[in-house]
Amino acid sequence: MSPPPSSLLSLNTATTRKQWGLAQAIEGCARHGIRGIAPWRDQLHAMGLQAAAKAIRSHGLTVTGLCRGGMFPAPDAAGRSAALEENLRAVEEAQTLEARCLVLVAGGLPAGSKDIAAARQQVHDGIAAILPYARKARVPLAIEPLHPMYAADRACINSLAQALDLCDALDPHDEGGVGVALDVYHVWWDPQLEREIARAGKRRLLAFHICDWLVPTRDLLTDRGMMGDGVIDLPRIRSWMELAGYEGFHEVEIFSELDWWRRDPEEVLEACKDRHHRFG
Amino acid sequence: MSPPPSSLLSLNTATTRKQWGLAQAIEGCARHGIRGIAPWRDQLHAMGLQAAAKAIRSHGLTVTGLCRGGMFPAPDAAGRSAALEENLRAVEEAQTLEARCLVLVAGGLPAGSKDIAAARQQVHDGIAAILPYARKARVPLAIEPLHPMYAADRACINSLAQALDLCDALDPHDEGGVGVALDVYHVWWDPQLEREIARAGKRRLLAFHICDWLVPTRDLLTDRGMMGDGVIDLPRIRSWMELAGYEGFHEVEIFSELDWWRRDPEEVLEACKDRHHRFG
Repeated sequence: MSPPPSSLLSLNTATTRKQWGLAQAIEGCARHGIRGIAPWRDQLHAMGLQAAAKAIRSHGLTVTGLCRGGMFPAPDAAGRSAALEENLRAVEEAQTLEARCLVLVAGGLPAGSKDIAAARQQVHDGIAAILPYARKARVPLAIEPLHPMYAADRACINSLAQALDLCDALDPHDEGGVGVALDVYHVWWDPQLEREIARAGKRRLLAFHICDWLVPTRDLLTDRGMMGDGVIDLPRIRSWMELAGYEGFHEVEIFSELDWWRRDPEEVLEACKDRHHRFG
Repeated sequence: MSPPPSSLLSLNTATTRKQWGLAQAIEGCARHGIRGIAPWRDQLHAMGLQAAAKAIRSHGLTVTGLCRGGMFPAPDAAGRSAALEENLRAVEEAQTLEARCLVLVAGGLPAGSKDIAAARQQVHDGIAAILPYARKARVPLAIEPLHPMYAADRACINSLAQALDLCDALDPHDEGGVGVALDVYHVWWDPQLEREIARAGKRRLLAFHICDWLVPTRDLLTDRGMMGDGVIDLPRIRSWMELAGYEGFHEVEIFSELDWWRRDPEEVLEACKDRHHRFG
């Protein structure tokens, strides 16, 4: 395959979160010619929403996603209600940033629960409750299936098939407004991946996150690799995305306590560009 | 649900591997009234096959599985061929032990490869090559789907659906001799689990391994929990197994560097019995 266009590269700011605040990440992207950015809400709040929106706009960057909404399951109605309010704030922020989507990380089992089916129902109900608002705000909701190793404590939506079934349940008449964020780290192992990407199609494929799976992986959460350092066949997965009609950005999202979070962020951004070109 | 019969409890000797050799584990099971045992091949070789078979027989224990065959993918034909020979030895050992099955852990990506589809084909071809011998020896081959976090380095068979598809491909006329070992640790998160256990049915369900998923999980490999200490709804999964016709043992397999491997093995076996009764 030919290399991916560098114009499609986006920086998820988790990749430089230990070194840079959002203002620095925006400046960094602009300086390095990276045209997309995906902020996290904690950094957004630290910078200020209006200041961030202005800086992003002034550099002509595209917000490829806002991270993140979700976290719907809770042990009681008050907790679920608080989660909905938090999600509505996230929708508003995504609207202000003109984000391509609001990424939803479903949430795991409520404290003390072993009932993953019930947690999944709570995720469905939570997204159903915010979807009308998100549609009105023109903020597509991107359900991100997370790796099964996060099923208990982060997200009980764990495969692309499951996320698409959820989309179908939430949007039975295909009106849109809900789809998926596909992160290769979470789904690369899935034997149904090619088929499910084709099933998703352009309308449901709202974001594409890239990084690599390291062997060995030393930590469940913060040992992701830079593209090319692991075992994920990125060009193959990208080819499936392109066949399905996806034309959006390729967002680099790397949690890396032991490596990339310790490096000079200028070097990290150079590596993102180089590895995206060579291995993306 | 009523508690599971204690007569169905089996000890996978990985659970006490840091404290006990196989001879001690056999004695321990006999002393504690645990009627099933599942040895690992390294411990079997250390004790000696005939001595182990004799000790197991003299105590009237059932070998609920031999761990393990598999590890089929290799970078070259010589490596794949060596894997087949190793698997034939494992079949012979399982036959000598009158094991209910030989557990197959597929193997991951060959060194340097990113082609998981090719690795999966090699697993298919490897099992196809040994299946006639296993059938002749009356040793059922139990493909164990491993958690997706092991896809790269341990097993590229990562869901029950995928393992059953593989069984169907290997045994299209349902002659038997190949099925699955279901370990709750690997599959508890799977939204298709209930459906696929029903699909598997009695004929394909060759083994049932239990333990628990801890939150947080501190290590990808050696931080499994004792039944009741984590988030897996064991009675629900057992009910699906029973509905599908499974009448075999419940084998406790716990890798636990930080906890159970540091305890007095007498206490570990008491805990296995108690937790199986209360949470199994």
